[in-house]
Amino acid sequence: MWPSTGMVQTQQRRPRVVIIGSGFGGLFAAKALKRADVDVVLVAKTNHHLFQPLLYQVATGILSEGSIAPATREILRRQSNAEVQLGEVVDIDVSNRTVTSWTPEGPRQTSFDSLIVAAGSRQSYFGNDRFAEHAPGLKSIDDALELRGRILSAFEFAEAEPHADRVEQWLTFVIVGAGATGVELAGQISELARYTLRRDFRRIDPARARIILVDAAPMILGTFDEQLAAKAMRRLLRLGVEVRLDTAVVDVDGNGLTVRGADGDTRRIQASTVIWAAGVAASALGRHLADQVGVDVDRAGRIPVEADCSLPGNADIFVVGDMMDSGLPGVAQVAMQSGTYAASVIAARAAGRPVPGPFRYRDKGSMATVSRFSAVASVGRVRISGFAAWLMWLFVHLQYLIGFKQRVTTLLHWLISFLGRGRAERVVTRQQVARWALDTEPHT
Amino acid sequence: MWPSTGMVQTQQRRPRVVIIGSGFGGLFAAKALKRADVDVVLVAKTNHHLFQPLLYQVATGILSEGSIAPATREILRRQSNAEVQLGEVVDIDVSNRTVTSWTPEGPRQTSFDSLIVAAGSRQSYFGNDRFAEHAPGLKSIDDALELRGRILSAFEFAEAEPHADRVEQWLTFVIVGAGATGVELAGQISELARYTLRRDFRRIDPARARIILVDAAPMILGTFDEQLAAKAMRRLLRLGVEVRLDTAVVDVDGNGLTVRGADGDTRRIQASTVIWAAGVAASALGRHLADQVGVDVDRAGRIPVEADCSLPGNADIFVVGDMMDSGLPGVAQVAMQSGTYAASVIAARAAGRPVPGPFRYRDKGSMATVSRFSAVASVGRVRISGFAAWLMWLFVHLQYLIGFKQRVTTLLHWLISFLGRGRAERVVTRQQVARWALDTEPHT
Repeated sequence: MWPSTGMVQTQQRRPRVVIIGSGFGGLFAAKALKRADVDVVLVAKTNHHLFQPLLYQVATGILSEGSIAPATREILRRQSNAEVQLGEVVDIDVSNRTVTSWTPEGPRQTSFDSLIVAAGSRQSYFGNDRFAEHAPGLKSIDDALELRGRILSAFEFAEAEPHADRVEQWLTFVIVGAGATGVELAGQISELARYTLRRDFRRIDPARARIILVDAAPMILGTFDEQLAAKAMRRLLRLGVEVRLDTAVVDVDGNGLTVRGADGDTRRIQASTVIWAAGVAASALGRHLADQVGVDVDRAGRIPVEADCSLPGNADIFVVGDMMDSGLPGVAQVAMQSGTYAASVIAARAAGRPVPGPFRYRDKGSMATVSRFSAVASVGRVRISGFAAWLMWLFVHLQYLIGFKQRVTTLLHWLISFLGRGRAERVVTRQQVARWALDTEPHT
Repeated sequence: MWPSTGMVQTQQRRPRVVIIGSGFGGLFAAKALKRADVDVVLVAKTNHHLFQPLLYQVATGILSEGSIAPATREILRRQSNAEVQLGEVVDIDVSNRTVTSWTPEGPRQTSFDSLIVAAGSRQSYFGNDRFAEHAPGLKSIDDALELRGRILSAFEFAEAEPHADRVEQWLTFVIVGAGATGVELAGQISELARYTLRRDFRRIDPARARIILVDAAPMILGTFDEQLAAKAMRRLLRLGVEVRLDTAVVDVDGNGLTVRGADGDTRRIQASTVIWAAGVAASALGRHLADQVGVDVDRAGRIPVEADCSLPGNADIFVVGDMMDSGLPGVAQVAMQSGTYAASVIAARAAGRPVPGPFRYRDKGSMATVSRFSAVASVGRVRISGFAAWLMWLFVHLQYLIGFKQRVTTLLHWLISFLGRGRAERVVTRQQVARWALDTEPHT
């Protein structure tokens, strides 16, 4: 019989650090503990780390899923003090210092000396969870493959459709939310329709597809400099994307959505493909922790933390990345830096060294690509757009991608898509076709 | 309103050739009609052509699905006389010359002047369809992704499992059927366990995984030369694969299978992963056609054809590839050559040229790779094995792969896997983990 994790614990002297999540926060925390005299247990509900900034490229057929999602245990294979467990954490017991995760073999309890909670965020429909069925989000590889199937099938179904109004509905793609993900998706779906698929069909003209980007805010890329956002906006319009600002989503169903514009009037948009890129909420573990220590989460489910990212009153429990209510944006850089920081505090304590000062976020800038050869970027006070920004985007993303294999396959797929306008990953599974066809009311 | 296919027909003068299937037979037939004065309609139930000989590499994480499955309409985009329809053919009316396919918008009827039926084959469980649930086959991209999820999850679940006997069950992989696919799968799962995953786990030793190859025949690779098969066998044994010949499968369930050996005794093998690579049967359209023309299909559902691959009594309806009962093996070369041949007959008739003589299959040889750098190949009377055969295997497969993008991504992934022992595509989706976990009885 194999010893359970709890039994091993009592025989060991080294403190155990449990990390929840294999995203940027969790992975960088684990790596930062490489030389610390601790045992690291990383518990994650997927077998892979996910390079989320490029997820939209899996959804639009540019990259294969493996290119942005290396196996977590492969990344940590040479780190002998780290162990990876596949499991979904269902309980954190703050007083007894245990984490319970659900594994295929039933629940599993792991005790910890220190804990780093980096469970990230999920899609939020702002209380309208019924939208989810018709407007999937883009947070996981599952989501990206689902969207790839929907987007590519929509053109197939349009080609098969005898009725002009239904053709138009199949060829209308609505993206809700004009942050970086929404803008990038809109740009890539437009390039797919206007260039990649241009000559592939006989009955429809894919270039006639309507790509509509909807946001309740008065401008796209709200977190960016106004001038940069305006440049990205012009680029989107040149790509034929329709941008509807000051526009709120009232309802979503199987045939499209209803929106309310700045004038207060509601309008109907018939669209078979609606993608939700509008909002995120912290993992439910945030509220679960907050309830135990008697603090409140914010509207997005994020939990207030101390200056050292620790849970109020619990110096050995850290909350990092998207889950912390710290006034910082939910971006990869914040997750990486806070994860690394929490690990450094734990490592210092384990070594009896003085702990570092409070967590300070170093903003390395932000960037978004609108289409091939065109991006916007702000680094410090520098604002760049166009081809130079795109080149910068390319190198920065290659640099942050985890894994040599991932870098070379990504670079090759980019050559294919950016030089040749092609998409190497156009597979729709039969399951996807069958399922979506079932969801679609046949024409009567 | 869009004209239905039938209405277009009445306004056209050019004969319409309908092709069913986007595999080797259908695709090569369509391409061979490029210069013919006909309209080609290719109806297929997937959006992609599938390079089936490399499907096992998708199942074992070597290749991404896009690498071996280019979109059919992309391949045919520049062929202006060809149109691709996504749909599953549910009826062929031989007397009225129509094909009915199921599309998301309901049934669709297409009339034809000539028809090429290239619907291929599916997995056959020899009447034991209940095996399918526990022993999936490998015939489609869906299958390959499902197997990739199962194979990689099995190691994850073994790592999470506290009971030694269950660990062993998770680490036992049984492949039923020792033809080329079975041999290649066994070899690749063994390489995955012994090399790729060697350092990735902390509680289990992946190299201890048992890979068992079962076949009712007295030898592996039955269609190959005996000496070559013996070489492949030695190579498999060196890789640690257990080969059980003269062994028939009696039953398969969620925890393994029961087999009967040459001695007549039944034995139990506890295994969480069972893969069926044992048999194929022609598409059900074979029997459907046979019933209409009053001939019998053979035990594998294949239909007898005339010397020119036409359906008895129907000179304009051709049956090619895996579906024809012609004494030829169900391999890619037969499908390509018979598809091309049927197209040449149709093209000759359309041009008023004399039709070519009866179909003659040119056997270009066969090959199988056992592991990296090691293959067996027979070309004419020449038998090659080892590294030379492997190099030949590599170049021949690259050459036959359809699409430039597919060739370069495949070559890159091969470099990663064959030089670096890595696997670039190790994603398991959450859906796969959740579904398989549900199928697995929790330990009590």
